[in-house]
Amino acid sequence: MSLNGAANGTENIAQTKPNPYGPHPSDFLSNVSSFQLIESTLREGEQFANAFFDTAKKIEIAKALDEFGVDYIELTSPAASEQSRKDCEAIAKLGLKAKILTHIRCHMDDARIAVETGVDGVDVVIGTSQFLRQYSHGKDMTYVAKSAVEVIEYVKSHGIEIRFSSEDSFRSDLVDLLNIYRTVNDIGVNRVGIADTVGCANPRQVYELVRTLKSVVSCDIECHFHNDTGCAVANAYTALEAGAKLIDVSVLGIGERNGITPLGALMARMIAADRDYVLSKYNLKKLRDLEILVAEAVQVNIPFNNPITGFCAFTHKAGIHAKAILANPSTYEILKPEDFGLTRYIHFANRLTGWNAIKSRVDQLNLDLTDTQVKEVTQKIKALGDIRALNIDDVDSIIRDYHAKVSTPRQAPVASENSEIPETLEQPEAKRQKN
Amino acid sequence: MSLNGAANGTENIAQTKPNPYGPHPSDFLSNVSSFQLIESTLREGEQFANAFFDTAKKIEIAKALDEFGVDYIELTSPAASEQSRKDCEAIAKLGLKAKILTHIRCHMDDARIAVETGVDGVDVVIGTSQFLRQYSHGKDMTYVAKSAVEVIEYVKSHGIEIRFSSEDSFRSDLVDLLNIYRTVNDIGVNRVGIADTVGCANPRQVYELVRTLKSVVSCDIECHFHNDTGCAVANAYTALEAGAKLIDVSVLGIGERNGITPLGALMARMIAADRDYVLSKYNLKKLRDLEILVAEAVQVNIPFNNPITGFCAFTHKAGIHAKAILANPSTYEILKPEDFGLTRYIHFANRLTGWNAIKSRVDQLNLDLTDTQVKEVTQKIKALGDIRALNIDDVDSIIRDYHAKVSTPRQAPVASENSEIPETLEQPEAKRQKN
Repeated sequence: MSLNGAANGTENIAQTKPNPYGPHPSDFLSNVSSFQLIESTLREGEQFANAFFDTAKKIEIAKALDEFGVDYIELTSPAASEQSRKDCEAIAKLGLKAKILTHIRCHMDDARIAVETGVDGVDVVIGTSQFLRQYSHGKDMTYVAKSAVEVIEYVKSHGIEIRFSSEDSFRSDLVDLLNIYRTVNDIGVNRVGIADTVGCANPRQVYELVRTLKSVVSCDIECHFHNDTGCAVANAYTALEAGAKLIDVSVLGIGERNGITPLGALMARMIAADRDYVLSKYNLKKLRDLEILVAEAVQVNIPFNNPITGFCAFTHKAGIHAKAILANPSTYEILKPEDFGLTRYIHFANRLTGWNAIKSRVDQLNLDLTDTQVKEVTQKIKALGDIRALNIDDVDSIIRDYHAKVSTPRQAPVASENSEIPETLEQPEAKRQKN
Repeated sequence: MSLNGAANGTENIAQTKPNPYGPHPSDFLSNVSSFQLIESTLREGEQFANAFFDTAKKIEIAKALDEFGVDYIELTSPAASEQSRKDCEAIAKLGLKAKILTHIRCHMDDARIAVETGVDGVDVVIGTSQFLRQYSHGKDMTYVAKSAVEVIEYVKSHGIEIRFSSEDSFRSDLVDLLNIYRTVNDIGVNRVGIADTVGCANPRQVYELVRTLKSVVSCDIECHFHNDTGCAVANAYTALEAGAKLIDVSVLGIGERNGITPLGALMARMIAADRDYVLSKYNLKKLRDLEILVAEAVQVNIPFNNPITGFCAFTHKAGIHAKAILANPSTYEILKPEDFGLTRYIHFANRLTGWNAIKSRVDQLNLDLTDTQVKEVTQKIKALGDIRALNIDDVDSIIRDYHAKVSTPRQAPVASENSEIPETLEQPEAKRQKN
């Protein structure tokens, strides 16, 4: 178990207590430090409005997911279309480390096609809420159980993994749910799935349902959360706390409507909880390229506020933030940009800047100003920042002008050196290290 | 209390049980149905990397927030820069319904400037975690308490609201926190704030801290959640369940790094929990324009997967989804697009489409096909969808071609009518209503 919550060179603080964002001590069933990913960009993601993946693109994405290290790759049902079936076969033959799954309706027609594709497992789903029973398939729970048992035994007889999931689980009758989960557990499914199909669940509901289910089944529990109300990442985390083992994700969360738990955001959540486990399993430095690959394939921009890879995820602006970040990045960062192959940025060219950020810039420019002088030039920068948006050149010009003025009259040798080679930033190493 | 979880014309289901996404019966302290918003686009949002708001833009945004119906508008500290001070004064003079707050460091210099601006209240913040005490202000808790009391009493003496917030609350010592909150509660602050400054908190931590604090203070509790690990919406909701009253939000969540709880996403969460309350207080039909206003001001795109206003938030694609949505939108929607002045879209032009979606399109085109014929033309559409991305015109052409072929030999009058006026979709009203 890591003490990563307080990493970044602050071991003196970190070692005094365990990671406060780690697994909760009271959650003895928690899988926060042993979770697995079912990556569904090629199934749920194909249901995203903009998605059309041809075979070559599917293979490229599958390989990239495998390099990232996902545990399972889930594919569109081979019953959806003839090409979908061929793509299942092609990806199952790639020999990836990740296990290949396909997702089918709870129907023998689909099951027969699925087991012939060569996949490692089949994810079966059927609607169990009154809404879906009434308006989708029109069947009662006895029928649901009967067809589930038939499909599960058929898939198991082919020696591959089988998952049974309800659909719209959070609007299903609890007793109905527990009954069918117990039935399929008893006949030996590898895992059962809970699905928040409409994105309505909240974290404490999730915790309660998973904990309850955990007392009914012995198999693993998988969870699938839609993001309509913005809780898909938190629900996934809370499900793991309650004892779920596997989370469905997709790259950038693409899926029906506004999608499901995004892979990247869940990585952010999990690395805050157990950095060692996440780093040992997943190749986080591939995250950005993976997101770019999928974003280009479905013609969207990576959201400006995307966790980890959003353009400003590691940008610090306010003066008091910049001051502390310069002293110790952990003060305002729970994530380490270097874990993802990214870098931190202190945004000092604005009216909210503070003298610590400007002092750091003065040092980067290898100029020599006292703290009082830095505070004075900071006021000049803030005054211009009040009038218009600033860029780095604006700030550097103000600093250089100020430096030239204050250093000319009283430090003739320095001034003349500056005036002779005004553009150079070369300084003796000793000087640079002083700061 | 609404039964909105199952709205959209399914009262037969909805009335059998209370809204399962409503306030949890065991949460007797819950403010899920009585929460308030502190809108911080003009404070936290100004700390977003791209933000530079001139006075006119600030006023435009403040007025738009007021029309939306936010309870409070929080502004950048008047101590940040001279223009920031003038902008506080200008917005305080607008006579908006929303109360105007400004946000200051816990320092008498800032407090003196703030009370002169004419704002309705002051939000004071100071770092309480060991990280911030060590690397930001360098003060101990005795100093923090002493300066808090001085600033609070000074602001109160001017007859305006005062909030005291810790910063980085989830990395602060619990006893330190409770001590200072009790102290400031006893001298009469209007509210105390909890801030997840680095975005590390998870929902069950939030619930525990808010519940604990609720037993220590009698004033209102405000919460501020950063979104670094994707939990800012869920944390806000869980805080309200635990008894917090006010949530800090910004439009699109803009703020330091990747920002805080987004206004729109929180509205999605809250309307699922208590639609009547949300509709009674907030003008949701203004949400989209508000987001566009701010997105343009800070030069970002609205994220493709933004709750509610993302371009595909109400787009349904997979065949089984489309079938049920056509029968009853509540099957796959927890939000009603019409609440936000938006519309639903069934995406039928793709290989995952089903015959119910195509049947609906055939009806929209006022063509007459049997179910067997619709299933046959659906296979043709899926076959082309396997080869390339489809658009609506592709699907319509396939349907029209098919319709022409099947109707020509046996229904001469219809065929000739079609061939004479192929572009018109006019049909007798009786025909249209039949479907």
